[in-house]
Amino acid sequence: MTTIKQMGGEFALIEWIARPTTRKEVIVGIGDDAAVVTLTKTKHLLLTTDMMVEDVHFRRKWCTPKQIGIKLMESNISDIAAMGGEPLYALVSGCLPKNTTAEFVEQFFEGMRASGKAYGIEIVGGDTTRGEKLVFSLTLVGKVKKRYMCLRSGAKQGHLIGVTGTLGKSHAGLRLLQAGKRGAAIQSYLEPQSRMDASCILRSFASSMIDVSDGLASEIRHLCKKSDVGAVLEKEKIPVSSATKKVAMLLHEDPYAYALYGGEDYELLFTLTPKNIAALRKEFGDFTIIGIITAGKDVLLKDGKRKTQVGKGFDHFL
Amino acid sequence: MTTIKQMGGEFALIEWIARPTTRKEVIVGIGDDAAVVTLTKTKHLLLTTDMMVEDVHFRRKWCTPKQIGIKLMESNISDIAAMGGEPLYALVSGCLPKNTTAEFVEQFFEGMRASGKAYGIEIVGGDTTRGEKLVFSLTLVGKVKKRYMCLRSGAKQGHLIGVTGTLGKSHAGLRLLQAGKRGAAIQSYLEPQSRMDASCILRSFASSMIDVSDGLASEIRHLCKKSDVGAVLEKEKIPVSSATKKVAMLLHEDPYAYALYGGEDYELLFTLTPKNIAALRKEFGDFTIIGIITAGKDVLLKDGKRKTQVGKGFDHFL
Repeated sequence: MTTIKQMGGEFALIEWIARPTTRKEVIVGIGDDAAVVTLTKTKHLLLTTDMMVEDVHFRRKWCTPKQIGIKLMESNISDIAAMGGEPLYALVSGCLPKNTTAEFVEQFFEGMRASGKAYGIEIVGGDTTRGEKLVFSLTLVGKVKKRYMCLRSGAKQGHLIGVTGTLGKSHAGLRLLQAGKRGAAIQSYLEPQSRMDASCILRSFASSMIDVSDGLASEIRHLCKKSDVGAVLEKEKIPVSSATKKVAMLLHEDPYAYALYGGEDYELLFTLTPKNIAALRKEFGDFTIIGIITAGKDVLLKDGKRKTQVGKGFDHFL
Repeated sequence: MTTIKQMGGEFALIEWIARPTTRKEVIVGIGDDAAVVTLTKTKHLLLTTDMMVEDVHFRRKWCTPKQIGIKLMESNISDIAAMGGEPLYALVSGCLPKNTTAEFVEQFFEGMRASGKAYGIEIVGGDTTRGEKLVFSLTLVGKVKKRYMCLRSGAKQGHLIGVTGTLGKSHAGLRLLQAGKRGAAIQSYLEPQSRMDASCILRSFASSMIDVSDGLASEIRHLCKKSDVGAVLEKEKIPVSSATKKVAMLLHEDPYAYALYGGEDYELLFTLTPKNIAALRKEFGDFTIIGIITAGKDVLLKDGKRKTQVGKGFDHFL
């Protein structure tokens, strides 16, 4: 018998369990932000799902039911955004303890609908069951124009690595909550926002894209693995807000560790050719170039003159 | 604060939480076996999802991981079958305790793949997370030709009510396990089989259809409600196998209660016009006519000369 930890964690498990696609219309199966299936001559169907568990992804004492709904929907929208697509329909399942109130369920749905409204996402189905702890599962169906589709596998040597917004803010919020303190970062943790706004522009320029749900370290490694390339990230260029730095300072921790190994920022990590930078900047400013794609397999973090291997990010089983 | 029980159970909750569809391409949202979305001129997309929870839907001491995978896949296939459709792609999420072994996950996937193989179902994505008890969620994407689509809402006064196979066998198996006894019915509970075989024929004849996942009583009520009709079921015509009757006799219970209020038989309940019966019989024999659709709202069970209202079926919150 082998535990998932012994195997190398959840990502090793997923890789081991995945099989080559068999249906010819399945373009991408397990292993990207969403699965891709041929729909029409110009469009693909996108399928993604995320599960959230009480006391693992959220604590009732820290968040409202509405915020649980928001985070569940945003985490899925983020996967569709990372593909360059548009979200359409959602199915949501809930495992609910017997004492769950109708008001709780209503507010949870209110959160999902509030996040989905901007994109016209419709909740078309689901399932309810009983259980000891709250577990929610959301599946989001989307579409993407073929010419806009961004996979993890498109990065090539010499492409620049960019990331939207700032990183580590969600983990800073979590750390504040864990420490019993207050601060603006808590909002980033409880009500993260996916970057559909950025995706709509990036998809015309990016050679590859992935959403930052498990920390920068994990995501850049996924992207490099799928693209069969390496990378060098420059630590000092990683965008960490002053608010995040303040939290880290307060707790005597490293804000860059939040960015690299924390989760749930839902920003977009992407690559693009150097010649595309200027054109992108004309249309969109909220991104930072943090490194470059290299040949080989090493994913390195450059801190001043020192280069070290980027560690693994958050893993539920490590 | 209102508990789900006070509201009237999970189906009352679902009805209360559902909203009218807003996207014009969404033909059926929450409230049928699967959601229906326009795909092409002749085909619709089907979307359905089911969640299974340890110690609610299955117990580790009673079943193998493979059997959990089988039941999860079959319950979803059954929803697609009830629409007259074909299953295509699956996304599966798992909440796994830390001590879950790779072998467990492998066998669980083996079960899902074994059930999906006959229809070429491909598992294209999912999510893994940690939690205290096993929770699995599967979303199945299918398609249906417009002319074959069977909704719950098509039954009309005078249509006959039919059901495939036999009912109560899965609950008989559960009762044997609960009583610590052995018997063939256990197989029906642990490895239920969806009726895609029947659906492929029924869809050309049925005016409405629903799968029997929560017991006949619950399903006929759903069907009548959606069709805005009533029904009279004849108790003595409800198909209950001699094996199921033997289990009930052994445990001093009523086998018709198993059929009416037990769950997980995954047979198909359907209606059709009387003139279609002969044509259907020529192509397919494994069904029984158990009643007739009436005007009004009463859903009645006729036992000899006595008619009583059909009670509610299994509900996770009642």
